[in-house]
Amino acid sequence: MTAEDVEKEVLRMGRQAKEAALALAVLSSEQKNRILAAMAAELRARSSEVIKANAQDLAAGEERGLSMAMLDRLRLDEARVDAIAAGIEQVATLKDPVGEVLSDWQHPKGFQIEQVRVPIGVIGIIYESRPNVTSDAAVLCLKSGNATILRGGSEAIFSNRAIAAALQAGGEQAGLPANAIQLIPFTDRESVKVMAGMDQYLDLIIPRGGKGLIETVVSLARMPVIKHYDGICHIYVDEQADLGQAVDIAFDSKTQKPSVCNALETLLVHESVAADYLPLMASAMREKDVELRGCARTREILGDGVKAASEEDWDTEYLDYILAVKVVASMAEAMEHINRHGSRHSDCIITKNEEAAETFLRGIDSACVFHNLSTRFSDGEEFGFGAEIGISTDKLHARGPMALRELTSYQYRLRGDGQLKAS
Amino acid sequence: MTAEDVEKEVLRMGRQAKEAALALAVLSSEQKNRILAAMAAELRARSSEVIKANAQDLAAGEERGLSMAMLDRLRLDEARVDAIAAGIEQVATLKDPVGEVLSDWQHPKGFQIEQVRVPIGVIGIIYESRPNVTSDAAVLCLKSGNATILRGGSEAIFSNRAIAAALQAGGEQAGLPANAIQLIPFTDRESVKVMAGMDQYLDLIIPRGGKGLIETVVSLARMPVIKHYDGICHIYVDEQADLGQAVDIAFDSKTQKPSVCNALETLLVHESVAADYLPLMASAMREKDVELRGCARTREILGDGVKAASEEDWDTEYLDYILAVKVVASMAEAMEHINRHGSRHSDCIITKNEEAAETFLRGIDSACVFHNLSTRFSDGEEFGFGAEIGISTDKLHARGPMALRELTSYQYRLRGDGQLKAS
Repeated sequence: MTAEDVEKEVLRMGRQAKEAALALAVLSSEQKNRILAAMAAELRARSSEVIKANAQDLAAGEERGLSMAMLDRLRLDEARVDAIAAGIEQVATLKDPVGEVLSDWQHPKGFQIEQVRVPIGVIGIIYESRPNVTSDAAVLCLKSGNATILRGGSEAIFSNRAIAAALQAGGEQAGLPANAIQLIPFTDRESVKVMAGMDQYLDLIIPRGGKGLIETVVSLARMPVIKHYDGICHIYVDEQADLGQAVDIAFDSKTQKPSVCNALETLLVHESVAADYLPLMASAMREKDVELRGCARTREILGDGVKAASEEDWDTEYLDYILAVKVVASMAEAMEHINRHGSRHSDCIITKNEEAAETFLRGIDSACVFHNLSTRFSDGEEFGFGAEIGISTDKLHARGPMALRELTSYQYRLRGDGQLKAS
Repeated sequence: MTAEDVEKEVLRMGRQAKEAALALAVLSSEQKNRILAAMAAELRARSSEVIKANAQDLAAGEERGLSMAMLDRLRLDEARVDAIAAGIEQVATLKDPVGEVLSDWQHPKGFQIEQVRVPIGVIGIIYESRPNVTSDAAVLCLKSGNATILRGGSEAIFSNRAIAAALQAGGEQAGLPANAIQLIPFTDRESVKVMAGMDQYLDLIIPRGGKGLIETVVSLARMPVIKHYDGICHIYVDEQADLGQAVDIAFDSKTQKPSVCNALETLLVHESVAADYLPLMASAMREKDVELRGCARTREILGDGVKAASEEDWDTEYLDYILAVKVVASMAEAMEHINRHGSRHSDCIITKNEEAAETFLRGIDSACVFHNLSTRFSDGEEFGFGAEIGISTDKLHARGPMALRELTSYQYRLRGDGQLKAS
């Protein structure tokens, strides 16, 4: 396709989405839940079609030499399609945020002011390989009354088309407004640029993928972008920590699932407990073959078997069985390290000193701050949100686990009986 | 200054602001209020200095041929400086949003999750002529715990410097962290570009000024921007309206203060009441010499003395004694017109039909929707917010009147006693 054709087509989809958003905004929760149920049913009914489309993506991926890990992330089988459908049904059970009255008061002149949750409007989702995002993102947006324009990666284009077609067909049988969920059916890079520029149609863009993708969207976008950057999560072991607890929490945070953004990456240890704590910690980490990268003091205590950490290590999200370790002279130094090198995601203090804990929690500029528990709890499901669209490392609109509520805006509704400003 | 020097200097201010933000975030309400009181006192003490600086701006403005209206907006006298100081004192009386617990619940494993309001961090304010914005914006940001970088227009640079110096000097005597309020002391255009690019330091930019300024910031900014665009406000007079009330509300909305964004710009009238209503309305508007610009049906009823409205009129914010008038065949047509031509600011229905009113309120995609009262109430002070930084026409983070609460983010604080994900 020429760049002009891409632009024309994406703009057309934007215009359609904006119309669909007005229709979506006034659907009742019951209508939306019926639509979600129909979508799940249709996706199950088309399971073999979806798997067939996925096989085309897999074949193309093998040809292009994708790694086994990439191919596995891309692969759909019956169990996975079923899991996607079950995810849709789960979203139907969640509380609809739209219509919730956030506050309500009376003006001295006697009229009512009500602040009510409403959908955002049209949300663009730009994502990379995993085809399940097509469904996960679209249904969260739908439940919160938003129209979506989905732009998936080229690796999963056949799968994405099959899934989107199933959602649309199932939804329309149950009253889904036309164009409420649209997938850009081609993967020209130009389409990202057009989406990022069309702030007359898109109220928000959410990029889901690596740093490169987010950076591209941020530099082009005219509308708000909610970013889900890295999680460079820290634990600070205070001088008054329960050292056994500090070992268990660090071990859980690092090893329970190292590939995710809420896993521990850097451990900071107060110098007064370092000699006691570090050997206990290192011994626990050996159980999972965690590679330690330590500062000079850490290596003095644990020996030269521990690799030396470079400056770069403090800024690295390993997503692997690797842990950076640093001895600090004070809690203030730990806090400064976290505020400088962290990614404002999730950071934890281990201490029995309540006052120190409160100073830490208030002074750390991160979405989630923890006292005496695993950073792995930084998660929409653990928070009870049911399903999340990601963990925002932004501070505006949505911060931390981002779910249905964060996919809404609000509107003020004023009801009077003739009140005038002049009298 | 060379572009390089500007960049270096603005980046340095950004770095300093980020440090200041961490110090500001942990100040108590009492500390912040003491700082505000000291700022107001110092501004009053320096009143003649500020007025002298302002005289330099006025002289330069006259030389550059600024209009009388522009010069008046720029002018400071003792009463105006006193009003700015009183504004600071008023902000001190407002409730501090920081620290408010938004929600609080227990995880099944027994730890507490708390969602608490925290400052956003560093806010950039880019504004045009009025020097009072220097103080108004800085103190609202300060009360909500944010550091500010102010970039005012060249017309008011001497006044802005004098006001900012007074705030800094007064504040620092009472414990204002260094660099909490910084004014860019020069007005090179390059500085806007540098600010818009430094998302490592600025969490938010708020442009306050005309469309051109906002557009420049939006196209350059890498961080969130909250926009305060036009108010193209509508009133729809329904077939079941109380026509007397509909005249009074339209008159108040149009004429009580036509120069502001919540003033009425377009009046839509149901065809079944147009013949009765339009002459009453036109007669009321004559009292203030309001120029009507009507559709063909309006002119059939009111006569050719009424100017013909062009397509452009439906998209115009007059901010003047001019009103566009259109007869519509149905409420649906009125709603479609508003959602297409409005600016998502404030729109009103006049009707005795409660059901129609609710359909209208829910179906209009605007920050504020009204039933039977003047659009002039779309205002932070009328809402009881005390002081506002503007009326956001955005849907993310802040919508409608934007005050202290909207200058905050939130943080999740989790307090446990050793909880692990794995067990």
